[in-house]
Amino acid sequence: MENLPSIVTLASYFSRLPGVGPKSAERMAYAVLGMEGETAEGFANAIKDAKSKISRCPRCGLYEEGGACPICDDPSRDQKTLMVVTSYKDALAIEKSGSYKGLYHLLKGTLSPAKGIYPEDLGVDELLTRINNGQIEEVIVATNPTIDGETTALYLARRIEEGGKVKVSRLAYGLSMGSSLEYSDALTLEKAIEGRKDI
Amino acid sequence: MENLPSIVTLASYFSRLPGVGPKSAERMAYAVLGMEGETAEGFANAIKDAKSKISRCPRCGLYEEGGACPICDDPSRDQKTLMVVTSYKDALAIEKSGSYKGLYHLLKGTLSPAKGIYPEDLGVDELLTRINNGQIEEVIVATNPTIDGETTALYLARRIEEGGKVKVSRLAYGLSMGSSLEYSDALTLEKAIEGRKDI
Repeated sequence: MENLPSIVTLASYFSRLPGVGPKSAERMAYAVLGMEGETAEGFANAIKDAKSKISRCPRCGLYEEGGACPICDDPSRDQKTLMVVTSYKDALAIEKSGSYKGLYHLLKGTLSPAKGIYPEDLGVDELLTRINNGQIEEVIVATNPTIDGETTALYLARRIEEGGKVKVSRLAYGLSMGSSLEYSDALTLEKAIEGRKDI
Repeated sequence: MENLPSIVTLASYFSRLPGVGPKSAERMAYAVLGMEGETAEGFANAIKDAKSKISRCPRCGLYEEGGACPICDDPSRDQKTLMVVTSYKDALAIEKSGSYKGLYHLLKGTLSPAKGIYPEDLGVDELLTRINNGQIEEVIVATNPTIDGETTALYLARRIEEGGKVKVSRLAYGLSMGSSLEYSDALTLEKAIEGRKDI
């Protein structure tokens, strides 16, 4: 008595999800077997729905559902500020903070010469076209505080400033709120000292 | 910008799986969004297939796929020995060990007066009918080595022996192979000493 073929197939899909190893995938597949028929049907339909109803906004590249982009199609948002993010979840985190009311632009990753990822892979030209054709006055580069993120931010700043009229900024580095100075890493402390502000 | 409605729905299904909290469920839902259309379609179909193709064998209660029970419908198996298990995965573990060639019977759980689970909830009468009508000569009770499992094993032994002709045994308790005596718990050591064998 081996694992049932349909369980093996289903487990192979679960194991493609982040953080799911072969053992957990098998356990999840058996959990589906133990669900009510209606629940399992709903689960399967939810997967299809997510793929069919959600698409990428052709302007900003973030996800939209039902054909209207919650950012680009919201006239109350500041049309003069553009934040460049490298993942949808980064934009979601910024939105949840409630501290930004401008537009977004999704870059398709970060530059990484070591991994063979160059500007043309990230859609940098599309970003520049959007900036130069529009009414954008400030671009905030919100790449991750990593070496690749930094490289990308500096590259973008240089390219955008070639256009001349647009201000480029990036998110501040420093201590995380609620964190402890004692346990902060040396680089974070260095950035926090460099970026100190008068009080 | 909230989470997209289809993502919220999909994440709610993922969070019903064992070991998946709300954060992981959300991450899994976004991972589905990042899959190729074909892969997501396959995933959804695999869920439906598992539910529609797999059913329970009306004799032993274990899962079967394609209408034939891999155990009951295998004439090479010893038809005189019946192992009582309390979950499908327990039977699978026994099968994987390759050390048992008899039949199985799935009990729908373990007795637990504290949780209000009584013999009639477990299908004990169906088990007794199967034993008394058939050619069964030995019943091996393979409940878990827990208090409820023990209670269930003793209860079953008493009920089966009322019929008279059938031998009842249960799995041995003792040290796990490859484990360390030093780190074994006191109850396991007690069982290992009680069950000691001449060499």
